[in-house]
Amino acid sequence: MPVERLVVIGGDAAGMSAAAKVRRTDSQRSITVFERSPHTSYAACGMPYLLGGLIDHHDKLIARTPETFREKYNIEALTSHNVLEIDVPGQSVLVEDLNKKKTFRAYYDQLLIATGADPVFPQLPASDANGIFALSTLASGLQVQHFMERNNPRKAVVVGGGYIGLEMAEALIRNGLQVSLVERGEQVMGTLDPDMGAMVSDALRDIGVTLYLRESLIGYEAASGKVTAVVTDQRTLPADLVIVGLGTRPSTSLAASAGIALGVKGAISVNPRMQTSAPGVWAAGDCAETFHLVGCKPIHIALGTVANKTGTVAGINLSGGYATFPGVVGTAVSKICKYEVARTGLTERESDTLGLCYVTATIKSRTRAGYYPGAGWITVKLAAEKVSGRLLGGQIIGLEGAAKRIDVLATALTAHMTVQQIVDLDLSYAPPFSPVWDPLQTAARQLLAQY
Amino acid sequence: MPVERLVVIGGDAAGMSAAAKVRRTDSQRSITVFERSPHTSYAACGMPYLLGGLIDHHDKLIARTPETFREKYNIEALTSHNVLEIDVPGQSVLVEDLNKKKTFRAYYDQLLIATGADPVFPQLPASDANGIFALSTLASGLQVQHFMERNNPRKAVVVGGGYIGLEMAEALIRNGLQVSLVERGEQVMGTLDPDMGAMVSDALRDIGVTLYLRESLIGYEAASGKVTAVVTDQRTLPADLVIVGLGTRPSTSLAASAGIALGVKGAISVNPRMQTSAPGVWAAGDCAETFHLVGCKPIHIALGTVANKTGTVAGINLSGGYATFPGVVGTAVSKICKYEVARTGLTERESDTLGLCYVTATIKSRTRAGYYPGAGWITVKLAAEKVSGRLLGGQIIGLEGAAKRIDVLATALTAHMTVQQIVDLDLSYAPPFSPVWDPLQTAARQLLAQY
Repeated sequence: MPVERLVVIGGDAAGMSAAAKVRRTDSQRSITVFERSPHTSYAACGMPYLLGGLIDHHDKLIARTPETFREKYNIEALTSHNVLEIDVPGQSVLVEDLNKKKTFRAYYDQLLIATGADPVFPQLPASDANGIFALSTLASGLQVQHFMERNNPRKAVVVGGGYIGLEMAEALIRNGLQVSLVERGEQVMGTLDPDMGAMVSDALRDIGVTLYLRESLIGYEAASGKVTAVVTDQRTLPADLVIVGLGTRPSTSLAASAGIALGVKGAISVNPRMQTSAPGVWAAGDCAETFHLVGCKPIHIALGTVANKTGTVAGINLSGGYATFPGVVGTAVSKICKYEVARTGLTERESDTLGLCYVTATIKSRTRAGYYPGAGWITVKLAAEKVSGRLLGGQIIGLEGAAKRIDVLATALTAHMTVQQIVDLDLSYAPPFSPVWDPLQTAARQLLAQY
Repeated sequence: MPVERLVVIGGDAAGMSAAAKVRRTDSQRSITVFERSPHTSYAACGMPYLLGGLIDHHDKLIARTPETFREKYNIEALTSHNVLEIDVPGQSVLVEDLNKKKTFRAYYDQLLIATGADPVFPQLPASDANGIFALSTLASGLQVQHFMERNNPRKAVVVGGGYIGLEMAEALIRNGLQVSLVERGEQVMGTLDPDMGAMVSDALRDIGVTLYLRESLIGYEAASGKVTAVVTDQRTLPADLVIVGLGTRPSTSLAASAGIALGVKGAISVNPRMQTSAPGVWAAGDCAETFHLVGCKPIHIALGTVANKTGTVAGINLSGGYATFPGVVGTAVSKICKYEVARTGLTERESDTLGLCYVTATIKSRTRAGYYPGAGWITVKLAAEKVSGRLLGGQIIGLEGAAKRIDVLATALTAHMTVQQIVDLDLSYAPPFSPVWDPLQTAARQLLAQY
């Protein structure tokens, strides 16, 4: 029997998790990974900290190099190799070696698409000027780093108040830049309810970021090919560095051209085993659709945790095992200087869209017993379905020790717990860790009072 | 109709939670609380930190004074009032006013017993010597504080390696004392598996505590009424201060004398609404039995969290509402200097006793992304039932940010989750908070590999 050939498109979290999983089960399989960028298995989430000077070298962000994959796993991970086309009936991909500038065809028995997501980067006046960056790959982060070293920018504008935008705003403040942030919504962090987002807006102002809320990007101004300003629908902001953090889109043009079915937001439609509509073709990570366990709808979410999990599930199935990925509950966490921000489940707007009726409660408590040194404030907002009392979502903002509490709510959401069940949870207590009623339970008690 | 009379025996967490809850619903009820000690509603768990100098005054440990209860809640909270007898048929209690040295009888329509737990204090040679203390009430903590101020002890021996013993060992080290700790078991923290307990033993040695494991207390030596040594079955340890931390026993002699049914370890038997076997008599807090949701057995557990919850449940039912307390999963957490220790569910020994077959996995990971500043080590041990894969318990030891993760496992245990479900959980990830696979999930993945 000829050796079975697995081809993987994309060498980051999902692709390499799958490839490594397959290798652990099957020492014979031929495994080839094509990665467009020069790096494999890097921690994209770490880039704001690299740029902010919290990490001293980008090598630390690389979990495993192509050499490691070759030597330790016998996996051929070819970087700077761009896949141009998938031929489903021919079971092959057309690949361009970006260094040697030549193309070749690679044949597969099984194909895993793990092409990730691309940053949204609107084509606007002067958007091709030097000094305007969107962060996606490690290479794009290094471009920003090199630009900053060479050009020593003074005035930065961040466009978009999502996680990347906020983390980059902090990183630029740490570098001593003057930082403005433009956000279309009424508050930054549109994945939170506006009342909670307002606290994050305040936190950003605290660290010196100038916010322009309810303003939309119109374009840029440039001189000699270098950006000089960001133009919004209300003003022109001088800028010699612009970070565009407008979210991501699944990178699925290859799949679409090959006739593979796409789902919500253009993400590749997959079943729980990560199989696509095409025979022998699988997808995992930021390019694939997933399922929201609270909203009970397919969604697209670009997160490293999900990429690792779906990559592992694909890998198990590709090695003849059986695994399924049940979905997500919408958990996310971020740190903006000393402020910790986390969310899970549905926001009010998301519940409204689904036609769910809910009650909410917001409380302020402490991360430790009030009398214990270092007790910081924490604000918790919970939402639960009317009548049933089922938890729908939670949001947390606070100081050290606040945000990771979101995981309890993520677990409770997964288990379809009610507010009463959260009040009853046997959560840990000792003065250095919590008040005797954990802030989550204080919020749940307040919510319960409305039933 | 005459005013209904609620009498509460015990003015700490359970008793005062219940009394306050009743008052919020019923402004007319006569509510009288008899508390033996001079304080109400104090944070007993805070005493090691008071004695360790982390809290500057014991007032900070008092949540609400009798005056507050009188003025804000119209609750008569009589401190230094010791109940001598419960007369169930006569619906009354016999009370001694410890200050005025006189007794009187108080009549009730409903009685709540919230007498707490007493520290185990074996009567041994010279055990009445000055300088030997067991911590229970705030008053007992203040006695230790006064003793230390007056006698300036140099050599302390802590008997018992449970939470109080360990927290007190740290407090005494902080005060510059030479500290030895005697523990009968093979490791300190017998509520953990020995392999995890061994790490806590090492942590104690790290901070300068001399451990004597597998040694039993035989008695004491004293001179002029003051303790001079602790005698174990293997040696005599010089000591001018001894802290006995041998656990607690439910304080239920009053209930027993009144013919009220007792359950496991002599705790008052209650139904989920906190009703005892006697008509009109309720019990809550450390004196009452509770239920272990993983072991599916009644247990006795003396913890502030449970006292607050069962007190609230009793209060709701006493005000004509309906509430039940489902039980606990055995969660506990502690901090020993920089080391965080937590556990939930069943230990190996507890599973063995129940006849459960299980597999375990222990992993070492980091509290944050490895490349992020301040990433500390964390060790997680998980146990799951054979065949079913149901989580049975978890234990965590690590540096800052480690221990509160136990709450995810407590929630998962409550929801009867399997190891696979823990792997699939949508836990939060960002580099300042966690590796991309949370350490809990890394442990769950390792455990899963055994199925």
